[in-house]
Order: sequence, then C-alpha cells, then structure tokens
Amino acid sequence: MPGKQNNKNKKLTELRQDIVTGDWVVIATGREKRPEEFAEQKREIVEENNDKKCFFCYPEETNQEKDVLIYKNSDDDWSLRVFPNKYPAFSCQGEVNHFEEGPYFGMDGVGYHEVIVTRDHKKQIANLDSLQVAEIIDAYQDRYIDLMNKKNVNYIEIFHNHGKEAGASVVHPHSQLLAIPVISPYVKGELDGAESYFRQNKHCVYCTMAEWEISHQKRIIFENDNFIAFCPYASRAAFEVWVMPKKHKPYFERMGNEEKIQVGEALKISVEKIFQALKDPAYNFYLHTSPCDGKDYPHYHWHIEIIPRTSIWAGFELSTGIEVSTIEPETAAEYLKKI
Amino acid sequence: MPGKQNNKNKKLTELRQDIVTGDWVVIATGREKRPEEFAEQKREIVEENNDKKCFFCYPEETNQEKDVLIYKNSDDDWSLRVFPNKYPAFSCQGEVNHFEEGPYFGMDGVGYHEVIVTRDHKKQIANLDSLQVAEIIDAYQDRYIDLMNKKNVNYIEIFHNHGKEAGASVVHPHSQLLAIPVISPYVKGELDGAESYFRQNKHCVYCTMAEWEISHQKRIIFENDNFIAFCPYASRAAFEVWVMPKKHKPYFERMGNEEKIQVGEALKISVEKIFQALKDPAYNFYLHTSPCDGKDYPHYHWHIEIIPRTSIWAGFELSTGIEVSTIEPETAAEYLKKI
Repeated sequence: MPGKQNNKNKKLTELRQDIVTGDWVVIATGREKRPEEFAEQKREIVEENNDKKCFFCYPEETNQEKDVLIYKNSDDDWSLRVFPNKYPAFSCQGEVNHFEEGPYFGMDGVGYHEVIVTRDHKKQIANLDSLQVAEIIDAYQDRYIDLMNKKNVNYIEIFHNHGKEAGASVVHPHSQLLAIPVISPYVKGELDGAESYFRQNKHCVYCTMAEWEISHQKRIIFENDNFIAFCPYASRAAFEVWVMPKKHKPYFERMGNEEKIQVGEALKISVEKIFQALKDPAYNFYLHTSPCDGKDYPHYHWHIEIIPRTSIWAGFELSTGIEVSTIEPETAAEYLKKI
Repeated sequence: MPGKQNNKNKKLTELRQDIVTGDWVVIATGREKRPEEFAEQKREIVEENNDKKCFFCYPEETNQEKDVLIYKNSDDDWSLRVFPNKYPAFSCQGEVNHFEEGPYFGMDGVGYHEVIVTRDHKKQIANLDSLQVAEIIDAYQDRYIDLMNKKNVNYIEIFHNHGKEAGASVVHPHSQLLAIPVISPYVKGELDGAESYFRQNKHCVYCTMAEWEISHQKRIIFENDNFIAFCPYASRAAFEVWVMPKKHKPYFERMGNEEKIQVGEALKISVEKIFQALKDPAYNFYLHTSPCDGKDYPHYHWHIEIIPRTSIWAGFELSTGIEVSTIEPETAAEYLKKI
C-alpha cells in the first residue's frame, strides 16, 4: 500500500503531523472503505422553493442590494455578479467599538459580507469550464483588492459551500467573502508555523511540501505550469485536496492573469474529480492567504483547501480538534488521479 | 438586552474573545432567532436495525469483547459496563513506531478505545436520574485511573455523542473513551492559555470565569455547592453549556465521591434543560482535563463542555476556526435557567 513505511500486518491507525501547524490528524485505515464506497453515502438535497423566483437568478427583482461588481457577456446578460449578503454575519456600518465585561473582551462585528454569484442556476463548479472558474477567481481577487485596505479589515476570507451537509442554504451556486477585523485562529496557526519552519530550515514549509510532492508524485492529482493539486500528507478529511502555487507566493492578490487561468483550471479539475469520484458530494473550499493587516508575511504561501464533507464531526473531533480521515491520502490521490 | 454594553440600535454581530485561548467567536445576533425557534429544526433519527439484537443491550450474545468494567444492580443485572470498541480508532497492540516520509512525520495510532454503556436502551442522559449520571462519571474516572499510567498514553479523551447530527451511529446511549499518545490541539491551546493567564494575573483563568459568573449570575443556569453550569461568554455554539468545579481543580481523576454526585447532578440538569429547550436536540459533551503525560498542570482547571448541534459548520468555520453562534449566551442562559 502506498505511503506505508513499515510492514506490520495489523496496522489500524496512523497519526500524521501537519508540518505547518504541528497539529495531528488520524488516518483511520482500520475503518478504511474502498474509494468507491465513499460515493454510496446518502446525501441531502438543498430544498428549492419553487413558488419564489431565485434571488440569485434575478437580483434586481428580489430586493438584493446593488452590485459591487458585475461581469457582462453582453449589454443584456451578465456572467457573474457580486453584491452584499442580505443577511450579513458582519456589517459594514460604523466604527469598531471594543468593550469589556469584567474579565472578558469583545468588539463589534464590523466588516463586509458579500456573495459572488455565477449566472447559471444549475451549473455548479464541476460543470463549468476552466475559464469560467478562472473568472470566479478573478472576481475573488477584484473584491479582495477593493476591500483589503478598508479600515478595520485585517483578514479576508473567501469560501464556497456546496450541498446541505456543507452548510449551503441556497441551491444557486455562489461563493462568499467576509472581510473581518480579526485574523482567524486557523490562519494564525499556519502563519506561526510557516514562520517557525522558515527560521529553522531557511525555506518555506509550503514550498518544501510542493517540492516533495512534485518529485514523488504519490499524492498529486493534477498539475500545470504554475499549480499543483494534491491530497495533503496530513489530510483532515477523506479526499481532501489542496490547490497551491508551485512557486513561493505569499499574497493571493498579487497573482497575474496567466496564473489566474491556471488556478481556475486546477480548481475546476480538482472539484470535477471529487464530483465524479464521490458522486456529487457536499464540499467546501476556501482560500488561505496572508492577512491584510498592514504587515508583511514573506514566509506564508497562499493556497485553496477543498474539503469534501463525507463525515460528521463528533465528540472526539469537537473536543480535540484532531480530525479523523478514513482513507489514506495516497489511496485517495491514486483514485482521483485516474479520473 | 442582557450583555449589551452600549446602546447602538443596529448592532448585528459581536466578536467575543475566548479569554483562555485568545480565539474569537462570532455572536451573530442579527440572525438571532427566539429561543423557541431553535427547537423547530428538523432532526434526524439514528436508524435502528430491528432485525438484529442491540449489541449494547446484549454484549455477550453479540460478539463484544470482554468487559473491562461492570457495575451491577444484582447478581443477574448490570447497570453500566465498559468494553473495548469493536471498531477502534486507536488500537492497543504494540509499540508506538515513529516514521518519516521526506519532510513529514507520523506515528502509529496506538492507544485504547472503549465504550461506556448504560443499561436502558431508551433512557438517554436527560431521562436518567442524577445518581445514575453520577455513576457514569464514576465509570469515566475508574477507566481514566486504570489507563492514565499506561505506556504511550498521554491524553485521555472522554465524550458522549447523542443524535445523528452529533455523529452517533448507535441508538443505545453510550459514551466513548480514547486514550492516545498525543495531546489534542484544543486542549494544548487551553493549557497554554491558562499558563499564560496565570503568569500575567497570578490567578487561574477558569477560576476568574467562575468567580465572575457566580457574582453576576447572568449566564449561570444551575449551581450546587461544588459546581456551576453556565453558558460561556464566548460560546462557540447556540445554547453551549459548561459544567465546571467552582474551586480550582486541575485533575479530573482526583475528584472525590461527594463531588462526583454533584457533577452528576449538574450534568444531568444541564442536559435535561437543553433537551427540553431544544426538544431533544443532537448534542455532544466531552471532558477537558490535564494530560496524563507525566507532567503537572497546576494552572489548568477541568470541566465538561456540552455543545448542542443546532447548526452545520460551513466554509467560514472550517476555514477560520471562528465559530458562529446565533443567540447571545445571556439570552440562552436566561431561557435555560427558567426551565
């Protein structure tokens, strides 16, 4: 079996360390299913309200706010638009008030919450062509650049939820952008890990991963000139895939046109492979890039993480933060690569 | 509204900082529902296979391993038993082998995985009486003490999953224990936070919380001589409740009999209040206590966290680790307290 370093017969479980954060994940191969079996899970469908017009198909007619970005095919037709979320988790009104209650601290949830909507109600990312996915990336970057220097914006989170188990409440394919005043704990962990790895090894930890993966080809499922798509050694979920620049790139917003076309291709192909392998599973993907808090992060390396939602976080994961994946990343990669 | 420190009219969202770890949570009050509305969510039932005998009702007849602990009502009848999990995530065979693959590290998943089963197939924790819940705590402690000094056991995780959305795959009420060679990232974050708070303030951060909550009574839902049950200021989930010793107690395994009776009462009442408020929701609870890795952790403070599963982690939570709760902890506490 790929990835095994010893020949024990009754090996049930492996603990693998995330070389960036130092966290552990469990690869529970004792409970391993064949790759095909992951596709047999029952999945829930997001319910559509057929009495109402889809408010992402007809933003003008359904009380959506004004566009902050629109890409047009022609004068009459659009291919992508971005507008503020009608039910924002963060709102852009006002200053950030900090407050205290005895020993506790808090602050207002000031920020921006936008939705990025593609035209076709029924075409999810797996069904779009590579250039259409590159257009989505282009929109992410346009909005990122517009918001990154706004007051009180220190981190911009861009993500995509597909399917009910992944938290999508609307069928029409869309991504979301949240521009927030705090740096997320997960990204903080990666920044600290990347910094500390660089200090010890004088090399970027993500570049180290990319170089190892490219030279060994055990976990790579797709590559083009500028990007690799691979199942990480310490995958947190079955069939997890990362799309990452091959060269050292700390800042998503600095990516050029040719790279955008290539990351669009790598993302489209990765999502399509997951779509086919797991028969249209629920999944999330999200961008991890350097904060926009005025500091430089020369040792970070932006990437996109795609997490298929094939299992539920239970007490163990909630309590420990140690995630359990039920397939070896090498086996998942082999299966995805062939598709 | 309770908990508000200022009088802004359009306050949608608050960011609150976890004073132990420094992480942030979002209290999205703009999306706030009335407490009653949380009970209206559709919940899935764990399917029962009526053709087969429940293997927790009849462990002897269904190929379960031998008990490692049994509490008996009489010679013929048991009230609680503990046996190894038939499908262990960690297995107790062998040494821990460490291995490398290029830049990566891993180790064997050596450890123990046990299930703690109560007698009655239909009585979940909310329906047991306080002394029966204290008996479960007693079993947790018995097993903890037996395993804590075993070779390669550095942390013992004890948790309970109730309902399908919480990851329970078997209807019969049961808890699980995992004794593992690594310390979980979440507990590590709490240990580091508690240590650093103590260095700055010469006081335990959990004691600080307990003292503040007891003197203000805004978020406490139940208390007895030795324990409080409260909705934490920086709740990660709607209706989250912690059960915590009032006095400084780093080590769960050192708890005496009177305390076990009282923590049983506090846990039973908390779970019952959540059961009634949210109409039998899925939930997890788990124990966080000091590692058993041979070191002392004088500044930690053990507690139980109860997390009702009223929402799905989507891209934002997965990506950032910032959890979004859709009700103010003060409002949730007020509602739970009245029940």
